[in-house]
Amino acid sequence: MDGAKFGVLTISDRASRGEYEDLSGRYIIEYLREVVSSPFEVVYRVIPDEQGLIEETLVHMADVEGCCLILTTGGTGPAPRDVTPEATERVCQKMLPGFGELMRQVSLQQVPTAILSRQTAGIRNKTLIINLPGKPQSIKVCLDAVFPAVPYCIDLIGGPYITTEESRIKAFRPSK
Amino acid sequence: MDGAKFGVLTISDRASRGEYEDLSGRYIIEYLREVVSSPFEVVYRVIPDEQGLIEETLVHMADVEGCCLILTTGGTGPAPRDVTPEATERVCQKMLPGFGELMRQVSLQQVPTAILSRQTAGIRNKTLIINLPGKPQSIKVCLDAVFPAVPYCIDLIGGPYITTEESRIKAFRPSK
Amino acid sequence: MDGAKFGVLTISDRASRGEYEDLSGRYIIEYLREVVSSPFEVVYRVIPDEQGLIEETLVHMADVEGCCLILTTGGTGPAPRDVTPEATERVCQKMLPGFGELMRQVSLQQVPTAILSRQTAGIRNKTLIINLPGKPQSIKVCLDAVFPAVPYCIDLIGGPYITTEESRIKAFRPSK
Repeated sequence: MDGAKFGVLTISDRASRGEYEDLSGRYIIEYLREVVSSPFEVVYRVIPDEQGLIEETLVHMADVEGCCLILTTGGTGPAPRDVTPEATERVCQKMLPGFGELMRQVSLQQVPTAILSRQTAGIRNKTLIINLPGKPQSIKVCLDAVFPAVPYCIDLIGGPYITTEESRIKAFRPSK
Repeated sequence: MDGAKFGVLTISDRASRGEYEDLSGRYIIEYLREVVSSPFEVVYRVIPDEQGLIEETLVHMADVEGCCLILTTGGTGPAPRDVTPEATERVCQKMLPGFGELMRQVSLQQVPTAILSRQTAGIRNKTLIINLPGKPQSIKVCLDAVFPAVPYCIDLIGGPYITTEESRIKAFRPSK
Repeated sequence: MDGAKFGVLTISDRASRGEYEDLSGRYIIEYLREVVSSPFEVVYRVIPDEQGLIEETLVHMADVEGCCLILTTGGTGPAPRDVTPEATERVCQKMLPGFGELMRQVSLQQVPTAILSRQTAGIRNKTLIINLPGKPQSIKVCLDAVFPAVPYCIDLIGGPYITTEESRIKAFRPSK
């Protein structure tokens, strides 16, 4: 198989200590299986909210594992231990503010505290990194909003050609 | 009384010279009295558009006065003397882009020049700092939009438990 | 004639090599002729996606040519050669995030890949610089959205008084 590699990175002090099950990371993996129709495998990690470790793990997933897409969950709020956006920004060459804007906008339809989320997205070489919220229901709302743009973004940075189950998510590629 | 402390900071060359009454700062204080139902006191200052002085005043209100929330008004436009967002960013460890996005979005319903506002919000230790526009009517629109998320944000950074007059603003706290 | 100077800067490797006609830059010039009713002249350049050259050209148009407004097209995506926002940020003293937010929001009505655009706007001394997308149809949607705020922004930074064909774009200036 010569498919894509997707990184799923759960960032949570408590989940990393085994204090609860990582429902969020598992939900993201399920979502990818439901939505992506081209072949792929998942690289999955659960780590605590330590900025240095988040950066190292993102770099490893991108540069060593060769993931074309990394989806993080957790650590995007205003609390002192929430450092996922900072780590993301540190390892990316380009930030894509439109992802955070749209994810906050759709999340605002659910809860007014969506504005507290600092989630963002960016490019490291040939890897698109997207920060997702912590809860499965919020993850779904955010992924449904941004995923139509993900395959074309991966095209533009030189990654594999991703296709989606069109009944679920219709990937958009502009005609040349 | 063991209530919260809120900083209200008017940033305006002309108001600080006494050339006109600071209607904006007063409006913010009235708004807080109308909307917040838990005990609080207000620390109020009017200063000119000097970046160094804005930074010092924000730091003083946060670190010395112990304000859990600072609301600024003025200095967020594109003119050379408008430096409030720069000062805010300099004293904050974390920025919360969702506040600026939502405030501009609701202000756009009023005036197309809302996109000229560079207002933002951020966290300095246990203090949430929010930049508001200069005019009372615009302040109201912005505070109505973001205030439902303010009490929970203050919870997350370790501040006092704020409650609101629910008929006016319904503070949202997610169930755990 | 003592009119305004507007810079139109097409940033495209292929257009700069003459591989295709620069329809985007021409479209922007047509748009300005259709919409702006006060006197102006256009300074027009087509250059490749080289960050250093983009910065030099923006600085030259602003500082030497005296343009009060520079509209760029191209180079705002996630691809490795897309560096227009970086160049814009480097030469500006103030960024205006509301422009990018609104342009992405209106472009999202057209295509879900609008979130991939990193377009922004900022101020260099007395010059407003706005990044536009690459395609004429997207340029129109973005300019229609932000242009009502452009003349007042130019007032605020000390530029010439711009008026518009009100049937086409209604410039907004708040009453004092």
